[in-house]
Amino acid sequence: MQHSASSALVVSGWHRMSYSFNDNTLISQHLESLIRKLHAFVGNAVTQDRNIVFGAGSTQVLSAAAYVLSLANSSSSHSPTRVVASVPYYAYEGDAHTWRNRSESDASTNVIEFVTSPNNPNGLLYKAVPHGPNVKTAYDRAYYWPHFTPIPAPADEDLMVFTLSKLTGHAGSRFGWAVVKDETVFNKMVLHMQVNSIGVSKDTQLRAFKLLKAILEEGTQIFDFAYQTMKSKWERLATTLSLSNRFSLQKINPQYCFFYNKVRESSPAYAWVKCEKEEDKDCYAVLKAANIIVRKGNVFGSEDNYVRLSLVRSQDDFDILIQRLQKLVSEEDGAISM
Amino acid sequence: MQHSASSALVVSGWHRMSYSFNDNTLISQHLESLIRKLHAFVGNAVTQDRNIVFGAGSTQVLSAAAYVLSLANSSSSHSPTRVVASVPYYAYEGDAHTWRNRSESDASTNVIEFVTSPNNPNGLLYKAVPHGPNVKTAYDRAYYWPHFTPIPAPADEDLMVFTLSKLTGHAGSRFGWAVVKDETVFNKMVLHMQVNSIGVSKDTQLRAFKLLKAILEEGTQIFDFAYQTMKSKWERLATTLSLSNRFSLQKINPQYCFFYNKVRESSPAYAWVKCEKEEDKDCYAVLKAANIIVRKGNVFGSEDNYVRLSLVRSQDDFDILIQRLQKLVSEEDGAISM
Repeated sequence: MQHSASSALVVSGWHRMSYSFNDNTLISQHLESLIRKLHAFVGNAVTQDRNIVFGAGSTQVLSAAAYVLSLANSSSSHSPTRVVASVPYYAYEGDAHTWRNRSESDASTNVIEFVTSPNNPNGLLYKAVPHGPNVKTAYDRAYYWPHFTPIPAPADEDLMVFTLSKLTGHAGSRFGWAVVKDETVFNKMVLHMQVNSIGVSKDTQLRAFKLLKAILEEGTQIFDFAYQTMKSKWERLATTLSLSNRFSLQKINPQYCFFYNKVRESSPAYAWVKCEKEEDKDCYAVLKAANIIVRKGNVFGSEDNYVRLSLVRSQDDFDILIQRLQKLVSEEDGAISM
Repeated sequence: MQHSASSALVVSGWHRMSYSFNDNTLISQHLESLIRKLHAFVGNAVTQDRNIVFGAGSTQVLSAAAYVLSLANSSSSHSPTRVVASVPYYAYEGDAHTWRNRSESDASTNVIEFVTSPNNPNGLLYKAVPHGPNVKTAYDRAYYWPHFTPIPAPADEDLMVFTLSKLTGHAGSRFGWAVVKDETVFNKMVLHMQVNSIGVSKDTQLRAFKLLKAILEEGTQIFDFAYQTMKSKWERLATTLSLSNRFSLQKINPQYCFFYNKVRESSPAYAWVKCEKEEDKDCYAVLKAANIIVRKGNVFGSEDNYVRLSLVRSQDDFDILIQRLQKLVSEEDGAISM
């Protein structure tokens, strides 16, 4: 809202009607070039000598990656490909369709490892676990922005997925992209997007262009704003929960951040809360009783004494959350000496 | 362009950021209600007691339909589902992935029939071919608008797919919808869209809303304009080709149109051209030599003495097409007495 003029979009009724752009691709070269500039400015990803493919949010981009990497694997063996991730992991929408699998594979199985880094739900900067020669890796880098984490180095993996949703918050626009090293993988992902939906809405691409342009024009400003917002939420949450020994938060070691040129704490999108008491093994129920709705640990392949609590909802929601947590903490433990 | 004020779109930077709308769905109820009004106004589809699901163009909606209908079939048998369509049919992008199959099925095979009506490429108002008890049908109604065809009755099938692309021409926005009778099929399609891309871009939905609203405010005006444009193109094309006996066009019987309240000719998006001479069995090559690029008959499961010629490109492109056809026709046959 602080940059309403530069971030607003005006579209004529007859603008961008065609399936493709003038260069016959489905991808706006202006937007692609802005994305490269943004990664260079933030220092969170290497884009030189890589191709960029767009999708309808990171959801569609990650599906395309899983599909294409499974094709690449299947040349060496006819056994099915298994998609793995370390616990706790983010389970994508729609349980019946989930392609994640916690179990480890034997040497003959083709494996695609999805590494969410920073991880959802716990904010840790995960790295791939080595699995052997039949393993392909895709990095979900949705949260690798300075408002959520120190940036210790530009990410340099073969296949890295980003999304507008966790950068500017525009989840509803459904815009994500992958930075891809291998040209064959890239070409197959582009084909997959064509078949699946004939690329990404031009309206969405235009909106993303306008938003990223506004960000780049303002230097570090939007990151400073978002970082301060997240930092302040984390401080309030940590202070509130420290009044009791009933709950604990994930611990993430501070690191040097090359965006802010200092050692700093993480300020992730989610708190990974543990109910510490034996009788609270259904942590979801404990918080539900205090009128706080969270996501259960088992959704992330973890135990139910863990829950995920979102810090990327509105400020109003967060204020109510803190009030209810304060009430819960003070009720349960009585007045605690400070 | 004639309605630049009513069709233009202005979006604030912070507008519609969320995954879902206020009612917690991924579908704008305002847009859904406009779509129902539009079908009622045009009289081309029954929407009462049906649900409407949105997708990224008819491509994604048809994929969802194929997926969901194959699930519905598989309860009765473990044999794979076959997708069929009558020749000539439209082959969707990406040959390696095509789920269409021309061959007829035996009684034990599950079948999904895709009926494109008016058909692409030949503009005929196809109806489903009865196949037996294990058959589900989906109608691609992309071209069932009065600028392309007489509207003899509101379409009333179980599953009908429409797209903005062939209504207003905004192919790049990637917006399509299905009108679905069965509630179970509808719910599964909604889930499929959630898993595939967490619904349709809110920017796209906003754009579609603005365009459909502008159409409805102007009464029959945009249809009159589009019908006159198509009609005039067809008259020029038919006149040009009638100067020679080398080429013929598809024949479609005139029908009563309840939108225009009169018997009228079709004016389809594509001409299905036949090269009549024995030596012209590669009709694509004949037109290519005249610097006219068309689509080969075999792309549509047909013979290569047929080609598809698009009449929904720009007026400039069409003018050049007519010039080149005139040259081709006059060169080949010599001066013809008029």
